[in-house]
Amino acid sequence: MSPRPTLRDVATHAGVSLGTASKALNKSGTLRSETRNKVLASARALGFRPNDLAQALHRGQSYTVGLISNDSFGRFTMPIMEGLEDVLHEAGIALFMCNATDDPEREKRHIDQLLGKRVDGLVFTGRRADRRPAPGLNLGGLPTIYVFSQSDEPGSVCLLPDDAGGARLATEHLLALGRGRIAHVTGPQDFEAVRLRHEGYRQALTGADRAVDPDLVLYGDWSEHWGREALHRLCALAQPPDAIVAGNDQIGRGLLEAMRERGLVAPDDIAVIGFDNWSVMAEAARPPLSSIDMNLRALGEEAGRRLRRMMAGEEIASTARLPCSLVVRASTDPTA
Amino acid sequence: MSPRPTLRDVATHAGVSLGTASKALNKSGTLRSETRNKVLASARALGFRPNDLAQALHRGQSYTVGLISNDSFGRFTMPIMEGLEDVLHEAGIALFMCNATDDPEREKRHIDQLLGKRVDGLVFTGRRADRRPAPGLNLGGLPTIYVFSQSDEPGSVCLLPDDAGGARLATEHLLALGRGRIAHVTGPQDFEAVRLRHEGYRQALTGADRAVDPDLVLYGDWSEHWGREALHRLCALAQPPDAIVAGNDQIGRGLLEAMRERGLVAPDDIAVIGFDNWSVMAEAARPPLSSIDMNLRALGEEAGRRLRRMMAGEEIASTARLPCSLVVRASTDPTA
Repeated sequence: MSPRPTLRDVATHAGVSLGTASKALNKSGTLRSETRNKVLASARALGFRPNDLAQALHRGQSYTVGLISNDSFGRFTMPIMEGLEDVLHEAGIALFMCNATDDPEREKRHIDQLLGKRVDGLVFTGRRADRRPAPGLNLGGLPTIYVFSQSDEPGSVCLLPDDAGGARLATEHLLALGRGRIAHVTGPQDFEAVRLRHEGYRQALTGADRAVDPDLVLYGDWSEHWGREALHRLCALAQPPDAIVAGNDQIGRGLLEAMRERGLVAPDDIAVIGFDNWSVMAEAARPPLSSIDMNLRALGEEAGRRLRRMMAGEEIASTARLPCSLVVRASTDPTA
Repeated sequence: MSPRPTLRDVATHAGVSLGTASKALNKSGTLRSETRNKVLASARALGFRPNDLAQALHRGQSYTVGLISNDSFGRFTMPIMEGLEDVLHEAGIALFMCNATDDPEREKRHIDQLLGKRVDGLVFTGRRADRRPAPGLNLGGLPTIYVFSQSDEPGSVCLLPDDAGGARLATEHLLALGRGRIAHVTGPQDFEAVRLRHEGYRQALTGADRAVDPDLVLYGDWSEHWGREALHRLCALAQPPDAIVAGNDQIGRGLLEAMRERGLVAPDDIAVIGFDNWSVMAEAARPPLSSIDMNLRALGEEAGRRLRRMMAGEEIASTARLPCSLVVRASTDPTA
């Protein structure tokens, strides 16, 4: 089937046994240098490729890590993958990704395939950072880390963006602009990210000696449509807000669109900030939407570093959250 | 490092040599059934995992295919990957993805890693379907297919969406609605997709005995901003269009937004159709945007079938284009 020469081809070409050819190519055992050189010359002549599989068997390590994603859009996974790959590459480790698309059977199959390849570690990621069931397969103590994802298994190692800190940053930014009535329009309450972002919003207001007005906190779905609807509801209040922290960029963009249609100007009438820093969405908004960046690439890099420490036998604390950062655009600062 | 039992552990536990243990587990050579059973019992007791690596060495096949993507957003790659994975899985083949993010050095590294794992085939994909330089590595006759991507190497196997056919579908849909002045607002001319979609638009008009009016064909970038600007330009014509084929959904959405702001109604004043069927963009448009779906998942499935045939030694014709389909929403049909 494959035109690639096998160990057997090399042995035949050199006129030695399979065992001798293997010893010569794997630099194991004792061979006369003449014999070894003959085998190496045959390997070169045939274009035989040093075989990672054989080396992995020999070393008991494959220098390979598997990444299992449930993010069928790829928007969150790709930057994480890039960061991971950079850090693993420094250690000579390859990263292979499988896409499980929220199908537990497909996920099991992928894990099984990766275990069969003797990966040295596993990374799980998804399109929402909530707790998820453990994969339901015995990973046999394999170093495993959840990034932008959490396992319901006690003691599992998880690396997440600091959602509360991000929403605090967003709210403090609006407070620093002198806004006094800051609303929060966000996604469904069953998302942990929604609860944590609300908590960050609350902390920032409390830290500035402001009360949280429950009329200004609206839950809906993650869509532009909901952002538009929420803006109309907020404008119907006796005291509409002068700033809004949106739970994501789609909601933020919907808020801005509905403002334009009512003749309201951002940030003069209402300053709006999103969350995710999804550039295609934030930059197409009018005006362009300020946002909170979850630094997913950095999250991937840190996951790679932690996984390498775990692979070296180190114990890692169970869960860590990495800081988000503020990206200012014209929806909060016309000079940006 | 790894807690997983090795072949050596099994041999020690069973009190046999490494060679005997290997024969028993790989069902090779001749062994007394008593010895074989003793080894199998030890393997079970220790939780030893049948080793794909050893089996791959033994068979000369790894039952693994590598996917190399240059789509750092993942939007085009994920559906292709799902389709591929489904078809390869039927044949017991695992698919592992590496993300090269348009960096030729990174791509070479990934290919090298995949060749080291003795993959049985390679798939290249990207975020634009244009010709790209060959990877600059000798793939040694390894079955290789380009999906939503093309190699500049003669004879390479490429699988692409039928961009011209898709644009023809879009234009014929507008003609069937009785529209007489159909514009085409699209992306940069250095994209092959732009040239092919224009060709499809032209074919549909010619087929209906209409001339192409050069004033109605506008090239720009792939953004909503360009869509908005283009609408204003078209409206400044002495005879504005009554329908527009947009080169992608972002342009289509920009056209619709600018129409709203001018008080124009879609489809009554101008019917608009996009291209890509990027649901998050098309569904958030007002009204929701009709579009052309490139059926990327089906493209991935067909790539998997062709790759399997190539892996079985069959010669495959160099390039094929698969049909796109029409998705009607309210921007062309208010009853949709």
